[in-house]
Amino acid sequence: MTDFLALAQPGVQQLSPYVPGKPVDELARELDLDPASIVKLASNENPLGPSPKALEAIRAELAELTRYPDGNGFELKSRLAACCAVQVNQVTLGNGSNDILDLVARAYLAPGLNAVFSQYAFAVYPIATQAVGAQGKVVPAQDYGHDLEAMLVAIDENTRVVFIANPNNPTGTWFGPEALERFLSQVPSNVLVVLDEAYIEYAEGDELPDGLKYLARYDNLLVSRTFSKAYGLAALRVGYALSSAQIADVLNRVRQPFNVNSLALAAAYATLDDGDYLTQSRQLNDAGMAQLEVGLSALGLSWVPSKGNFIAVDFARDTAAINQALLRAGVIVRPVAGYGMPNFLRVSIGLPAENARFLEALAEVLRT
Amino acid sequence: MTDFLALAQPGVQQLSPYVPGKPVDELARELDLDPASIVKLASNENPLGPSPKALEAIRAELAELTRYPDGNGFELKSRLAACCAVQVNQVTLGNGSNDILDLVARAYLAPGLNAVFSQYAFAVYPIATQAVGAQGKVVPAQDYGHDLEAMLVAIDENTRVVFIANPNNPTGTWFGPEALERFLSQVPSNVLVVLDEAYIEYAEGDELPDGLKYLARYDNLLVSRTFSKAYGLAALRVGYALSSAQIADVLNRVRQPFNVNSLALAAAYATLDDGDYLTQSRQLNDAGMAQLEVGLSALGLSWVPSKGNFIAVDFARDTAAINQALLRAGVIVRPVAGYGMPNFLRVSIGLPAENARFLEALAEVLRT
Repeated sequence: MTDFLALAQPGVQQLSPYVPGKPVDELARELDLDPASIVKLASNENPLGPSPKALEAIRAELAELTRYPDGNGFELKSRLAACCAVQVNQVTLGNGSNDILDLVARAYLAPGLNAVFSQYAFAVYPIATQAVGAQGKVVPAQDYGHDLEAMLVAIDENTRVVFIANPNNPTGTWFGPEALERFLSQVPSNVLVVLDEAYIEYAEGDELPDGLKYLARYDNLLVSRTFSKAYGLAALRVGYALSSAQIADVLNRVRQPFNVNSLALAAAYATLDDGDYLTQSRQLNDAGMAQLEVGLSALGLSWVPSKGNFIAVDFARDTAAINQALLRAGVIVRPVAGYGMPNFLRVSIGLPAENARFLEALAEVLRT
Repeated sequence: MTDFLALAQPGVQQLSPYVPGKPVDELARELDLDPASIVKLASNENPLGPSPKALEAIRAELAELTRYPDGNGFELKSRLAACCAVQVNQVTLGNGSNDILDLVARAYLAPGLNAVFSQYAFAVYPIATQAVGAQGKVVPAQDYGHDLEAMLVAIDENTRVVFIANPNNPTGTWFGPEALERFLSQVPSNVLVVLDEAYIEYAEGDELPDGLKYLARYDNLLVSRTFSKAYGLAALRVGYALSSAQIADVLNRVRQPFNVNSLALAAAYATLDDGDYLTQSRQLNDAGMAQLEVGLSALGLSWVPSKGNFIAVDFARDTAAINQALLRAGVIVRPVAGYGMPNFLRVSIGLPAENARFLEALAEVLRT
């Protein structure tokens, strides 16, 4: 038999696939539990449920299921351009922002080149880099957050991309406008800075910079955003990038022509119009974060301060057994040993009752 | 300003994006027409409308829109494995079969390597090959179909992939079981044969081979299929590959973890259960093909005999003006000059009234 693993590209041979949060149905099958009894706080999903406007838009689109999506995403891109005060030709749509990260790697990285990113950064940065055979240069974190000064130093003549996230996943850490400005002003102009703002809607108005404000001044900046988090459309897969028109042109060449499905296009458009939904998402998250912090404090636990819709809890010991015990109690959170954080569990902010259920289960687990 | 086109990978710099069929809304905007008055026979879409079972499955899934899809596609893959008499670990799901073709190119092609495909083959083969900087070796067609003997000769020591389609798009041509067997038995075992069966459900039971029957004997065979055509789910983007478990493992490493959205997973599963839908799709197509053939004959036109849900009509002169006139009449068909067939237009089989509308518009255009 031919060895088709050995025939694969070297980068691909070394790939370890992304490990997603355990789906509810999978745990239900494994432990023979009622899916309705399971609480999943593992994938930073919006606990609010979908926007009614998104549901309405999807229903209106169902008759057209046999038709291909608009490959240009004309309406959604026009709407995003207007919202973000950019031109339509500066927008790239992705099948989730994962697709955006992948497009950047495919367009700008290759064997012999490298991407710089932080320790404890989102797992898709190393995966997308590895998949195209480029080197990932991992810069040690500072207090679990990006050490932007050290990242600048790590950039060398073979660096083509720097991935930074604000806030960062899985740690929830963030940096301010001065730090970003200092960083952007020093990154060589031929290095593409991917500023991943997947969680920015949870942090708006806080001490985080709005990446869009820097686009006009830095033509090597790409801001990546998603409808999977605060907009509540993770199931549908839609993300977007804002960049110079030239970078958008390059990414749109690599993009599969129908990468974003029709229902995603319609639902994303409708959710953009639903300002109340975003406000509620944010309020629910703020309240849930406070609830978890109070509960975790009461259990004597500490955590990494977070601006996301999740919190990395520090158990000061390996969490594999705690995670297993939580699973048996029907509570799914996210182990982050794969991120080099074996003593932590990442917990997504849920509904008040879900947060309470997690805290109770955790208290029980820690008691025994 | 930094030139981010020059910084892109050489293959990417040379990419010309895929040109999809013109969307109805786009033509409506351009010519200020009522979208409802436009007939689109340009993208080989299923004119039947979606399966009621697919719609039901989508509605049942809507409450879960904020949740990520099952990245393993457990239920759909299990169902497909059972239908296709393979193991679950032989299935790879794609965001449309376009994604499958892209995954193959990313896993097995690179600069210095090549892929062999036919003249007049699906445009995504050269695009996916080019995007990773590999060479496309185009083998002249025979009567607009694949010359499999010549394709064998074209395979050299740098060939890693051969793309063949049965039936082929945009020509509708096909090859029989003996030709496929002869081909597979002579392709070097280290060359991956991608047998693209996007349209196979329209040709089943005819003189076309069922690619799945060859999987057990040829571990270098991958069969690619889609839910976008006979299953009527183009809007949702879901395709799949069946191959050896090893090749599936490689492709699943490259695959984005949530490449197929939740509604697509649910709708595809439901449509597989709707045997009536597939039968109706096929019957509608057979009747529409006969209707078009009669009408085209009456207009003195010829065409390439087709086993797909479309027909490439030969006008024996450049068709750009004819296409423009049809657009003005509100009828969208597909120019195939980009495929090196400037004298042809590809017409998808529509509903009886749509086919009639096309034939009338065409008669009028040809009269003037």
